[in-house]
Parts: sequence; structure tokens; C-alpha cells
Amino acid sequence: MSTDLHIVVPAGGSGTRLWPLSRAASPKFLHPLTGTERSLLQATYDRLTPLVTPEFIHVVTGTSHATAVARQLPEVPERNILVEPMPRDSCAAIALAAAVIAKENPDAIMASFAADHLIADPGAFVDTVRAAVEGAKAGRLMTIGITPTGPETGFGYLRCSSVPVPGTAQPILEFREKPSAEVAAEYVASGEYLWNASMFVWRVSAFLEALAEHRPDVLEPVRRIVAARDTAAEEQVLAEVWPTIPKVAVDYAVMEPAAAQGRVATVPGDFGWSDIGDFDTLGELLAKTCDGAAVVGEGEVICLDTEDSVVVPHGGRLVALLGVRDLIVVDTPDALLVARRDRTQDVKKVTELLKERGLTGFL
Amino acid sequence: MSTDLHIVVPAGGSGTRLWPLSRAASPKFLHPLTGTERSLLQATYDRLTPLVTPEFIHVVTGTSHATAVARQLPEVPERNILVEPMPRDSCAAIALAAAVIAKENPDAIMASFAADHLIADPGAFVDTVRAAVEGAKAGRLMTIGITPTGPETGFGYLRCSSVPVPGTAQPILEFREKPSAEVAAEYVASGEYLWNASMFVWRVSAFLEALAEHRPDVLEPVRRIVAARDTAAEEQVLAEVWPTIPKVAVDYAVMEPAAAQGRVATVPGDFGWSDIGDFDTLGELLAKTCDGAAVVGEGEVICLDTEDSVVVPHGGRLVALLGVRDLIVVDTPDALLVARRDRTQDVKKVTELLKERGLTGFL
Repeated sequence: MSTDLHIVVPAGGSGTRLWPLSRAASPKFLHPLTGTERSLLQATYDRLTPLVTPEFIHVVTGTSHATAVARQLPEVPERNILVEPMPRDSCAAIALAAAVIAKENPDAIMASFAADHLIADPGAFVDTVRAAVEGAKAGRLMTIGITPTGPETGFGYLRCSSVPVPGTAQPILEFREKPSAEVAAEYVASGEYLWNASMFVWRVSAFLEALAEHRPDVLEPVRRIVAARDTAAEEQVLAEVWPTIPKVAVDYAVMEPAAAQGRVATVPGDFGWSDIGDFDTLGELLAKTCDGAAVVGEGEVICLDTEDSVVVPHGGRLVALLGVRDLIVVDTPDALLVARRDRTQDVKKVTELLKERGLTGFL
Repeated sequence: MSTDLHIVVPAGGSGTRLWPLSRAASPKFLHPLTGTERSLLQATYDRLTPLVTPEFIHVVTGTSHATAVARQLPEVPERNILVEPMPRDSCAAIALAAAVIAKENPDAIMASFAADHLIADPGAFVDTVRAAVEGAKAGRLMTIGITPTGPETGFGYLRCSSVPVPGTAQPILEFREKPSAEVAAEYVASGEYLWNASMFVWRVSAFLEALAEHRPDVLEPVRRIVAARDTAAEEQVLAEVWPTIPKVAVDYAVMEPAAAQGRVATVPGDFGWSDIGDFDTLGELLAKTCDGAAVVGEGEVICLDTEDSVVVPHGGRLVALLGVRDLIVVDTPDALLVARRDRTQDVKKVTELLKERGLTGFL
């Protein structure tokens, strides 16, 4: 049975809310933000190995990171590392992987998990995936919805048909975008909502059918690219056709309209998931306490009269804090960020400002 | 007349409240904290040149800084750069210079000014020094007292016999140590107090007499060292005798008891003086505004929603601030300080903590 399951890991996105630690040239998924020496990508790989052997693991990544991915995951066959000539968002990346897998086996089950999430209980994760695989075999487009631990406004939500039961598949009525604080509180109070972590499981044929229906403008160029795979024209077709694919997220392009058609179901997951989306979360999950500050990493830190602050000493230098509170201090070899802790969601605004000012070397 | 005036610049002290910019190996006076490319030491030299030619300028400094001083002040004769084998505080440094000058000309007038102060109006400074020289010729131990601009608690105060008149010498009744905030407010309200900036002018014979009376334990070893100067035993005597000199500040050792004897007078100075003692002052005096932060120096700084903060980008890296206020951020190649602005007086506590933890390489 495991020979039928392929797992796709889209490894893109630079994690702008983790700037300056995460960069275009050195994105979040390549960093060891796991509490061990393994990178987020490697930890993702590690928790997939109970489900499949390495030949069934595929990574979709950009030109800048293909070599790093290849070295961080030496067990994954080179052929399984699909390199996008430029980022075209998740629908294109996932469609490419689905079409590549379908070319070999149209009945294969495919599961897709981001490269830069953290999961505290890998055993519970594996069990949840297995339950979702069963739903996918029955022809449904499955998603794993995360049992909310609070009224987060940074995530999209999945509206279930009733209060979800862990380990049991049930239909998804609707994908809801990131809510306001009040709406998020209502969602969580109702018990009928799960976080959308963009974890998907489906038969590749079922997904490609839905894609054909809702976004033929994505499927058509992907089909041309996959048709040219393993021919002399492969690189040229990829280079010419890939840039024409619309940039759209698979959640909105396919799963939302499919949910409205009653074709999407979920298995609720409760396995200590985090997308480590910002420094606030990073400090909570991975820091060791040092003189009243949460320190992520191994650098030298000195704190005097400091409270509720997070330090990421990643520049190889001494970091000293005096009399401060509620701060995020991120030190890297060429850039330093000092931010109020409750503004961590706005770190991407700093990266936008850098772009405006032409300081793109720091992105 | 100018041939009678010698000027001594004690260039010691690492400026621990300016850590990590100022270090034991790279003290405040060697840094260009002047708004130009000239270091504080060079700016000190520059404002002395209307008073004397370079052969009459002497610098007393430590072994670690002798070469830097020699290169920063190429006009000062090598012989005039007196090198202390180890720091023994200001009484020893000034006594050594006084004895060296007295050996050539016991009737010479000597003036002493720190190497790391900033003066906005050098013309007014020169006029004030000239007025003090007249007082010194009359045999008094003169000090230049700074007209207070506010009730500062970081300075010692000079108690005058009556409200001082600018440019006019008058007796000092007492040296007062750093006061509390309430006491400082009383001092300033009375109009009878000046800040003690340790600027002294005297006939060397008058100073050495006062030293003989109040601190023979300092004078005696200094005499032995100066007697050996220009002999084969010079280095050996210096190395053996210097460490035996008591560590004491000249203000307390000589000027305080001399004031009690009615031998000290002052000329009030109002020439935009600052000792640039901490980052708060540095930000006020030397910063250019950038997105709501005061930036000292030339580094790249990006600020979003930032208020009343001071950035010293001295590490060659980008510094980004987001949503912070009342902070001091000092970036250097090997150490970073983030401090609440009202804690700048406590920066030296950070250096003490570094010492405790054996991180002396950062001092």
C-alpha cells in the first residue's frame, strides 16, 4: 500500500516575518529551527519516513535552493527534486508534482506538506495522515485541519459540517480567510472550525480533475511541461512555459471551489503543529531562558533587568540587553532587527521598506 | 608669553558607559564622536592650537594607546607623549606631566584638559583658558567651572563664593561630589554652583607645592621617575616605581583640600561643553534624524513606527527598528547593546557583568 503513497514537499517562500534570520537566499526551511541540528526541511523529511521510503518523497523548490535541498536530503532521488525556474505560488508547484506522479501512476495517492512547519508529536501526525489517506482512496480531496489552540488571526480556517472528531473524516463546508480577532474568537468558541495548514491528501487523478475544472489555465501549461519531461526539449519547455502559469494558491484556486461542491473532507489533527511564522512563536517554542530573555540558538547573550524578550543571536557576536522588555532582537552577520514583540506580524513591512529603498541585498 | 604655557591632555579611561562602542582597546577619545572625521582627541588638540604650538602640548596615556595617540597627533613631539605602564588615576598622570614640565621650567603655567570632551564654541573656550592663565600667574590653582545647563546628577559641582560672573575669576569654597536629583536642583537654582569638568590651570610650582603638602606619597615616586628621565635607568625606574603610586583622582587628592585652604579659584566657562558620557547625550549632540530615530554615524538604518531612540550603527550592518521607543541600539562588529534610554548610566553594569562572567574579550 505504501507504494501507492507519494509525498510532496513544496519548499518555497522566504518567510519574510522571520527576516533577517530567514532570507530569500537562506529561507526558513533551510534553518535548524527545530530544537535540534536538523533543519525544518530535514525535520519534515524525518517525520515522513514512517509513511514512505525516500523514492516516494518529492520536493518542489526554486533555483536558488535546489542544491541546498539536494544536500540536506541526500536520500531523496535527484529526479524527485523538481526545480521551478521562478516562484508561481502553490497551485503551480503542487500541480507540477501531481502531474509528474500521475505520469507514472494515475491512481497514486499524493500528500502535500509544507517544508517549514514544526510538529511536536510526529506519531500522532503519521496516524492522522493515514486516516486522511483512507479518505483520499474513497475519492475525496482531503485536508488535515489543525485543532485550534487559540483564536489566532494569522491563519485561514476550515468550516466543518459539525464539531470535528479527531481521527475521523468529515466534510468541509468552506475555506475561510484570515479572520479578525472577534471572528476568530467566534470560530474557536463554536468548535466547528479548524486551522488550514495547507496539508492535502488526494488521489492525483481526483486533484487533476478538479484542477481541469477550476483552473485549466494552470493545468494546461503543467501538462505541456510534464509531457516534455525526459526529452531533449525538457529544459526549454520548462523555461518557456512555466512563467506563463498564473500565480495562485492551491487553497483558493482548487480547494475552495471543490469544497463548495462537497468534494473536500478533513481529518482533524492535534499533534502540536506550528508554522513558526514569527519570532514570537519561535521564542515560545524553541528558546532556552537566559537572564529573563528567551534565547533561540547558541550565541552569547547577557541580560540585565530584561523581561519577556526574545533574542536570536545568529551573528556570532555578543548580544547585551539592559532594562528592556517585550522586545525581539535578531542578530545576523549583515543585518540586525530590534522590534516590539507585539509587532512581529509586521516584520514583513520592514522587508517591503527595504525593497522600496533598493536595499534588496538584505532580503 | 605662550612659551610659558604648557597644556597636558590626560588620555585615559575607556568610557564604560559608551560600551560597546568604547572599549579598553579602543577608548572613547580615539573615536570620531565629534560630528567630523576628527577623533575626540584630535578635536581636543585642534582647539588647543590657538593657545600654544605643538611642542607645548603633552599627552599622558596608557601603553595600549600610545601608538594610536602618536599617529592621531603627528605634530606633537614623541617626547611629549608620556606613557604610563598602567593606569594610576588622574593625580599620578597630572603629577608626572607637571614634574616633567617643571624640570625644564619650574615657573611654567600648565593647563590640563581631558582628551574626550566636546566643546561647541572653541573661541569662548580659548578666552576662558586665557582668563584662567592670568589667575594661575597670580599663584592660584585655577579650575574652569562649567555653567550648568540643567540639574545633572552625573557631574561633581564647584561651590563658588557668590554667583559667578563669566570670564571673571573668583574663589571656590568647596568641591561637591555627584549629587542626588533634589540636591542638584537646589545647586542649579542657587546660581552659585558650576560643574566640575576637571579643567585645571596652575603654575607647575604651585601645584607641586600643594601636592607635596597633601599627597607626598604621589609626589615622591613621581620625582624619582622624572629624575631618571633621559638616563639609562629611565624605563626600569618607571616600571618599578609607577605601580607603587596610589590611585587617586587629582580633584579629591589636591584640589579639594587646597580649596578648603582658599587656594583654588575658578573662571566660569560657558562654551557648549559636554563630556559625551553616555549614549543619551551622544544621541542629543551628534545624531542625524532618520525615520524617528537619532542615528550617530554613517551606517544603514531603517525605522518603522520608532520614537525617541538612538542608533549607533558601527558594525557595518543594516539596523532595522520596528515599533520601538526610548531605546539605545549600539551595533559594533563583535558586540551589540540594546538598552532602555533611561538606563544609559547603567551600561557600565553590563561591563561589570561581562567581567564577572569572564567575557573580558568584549571589554
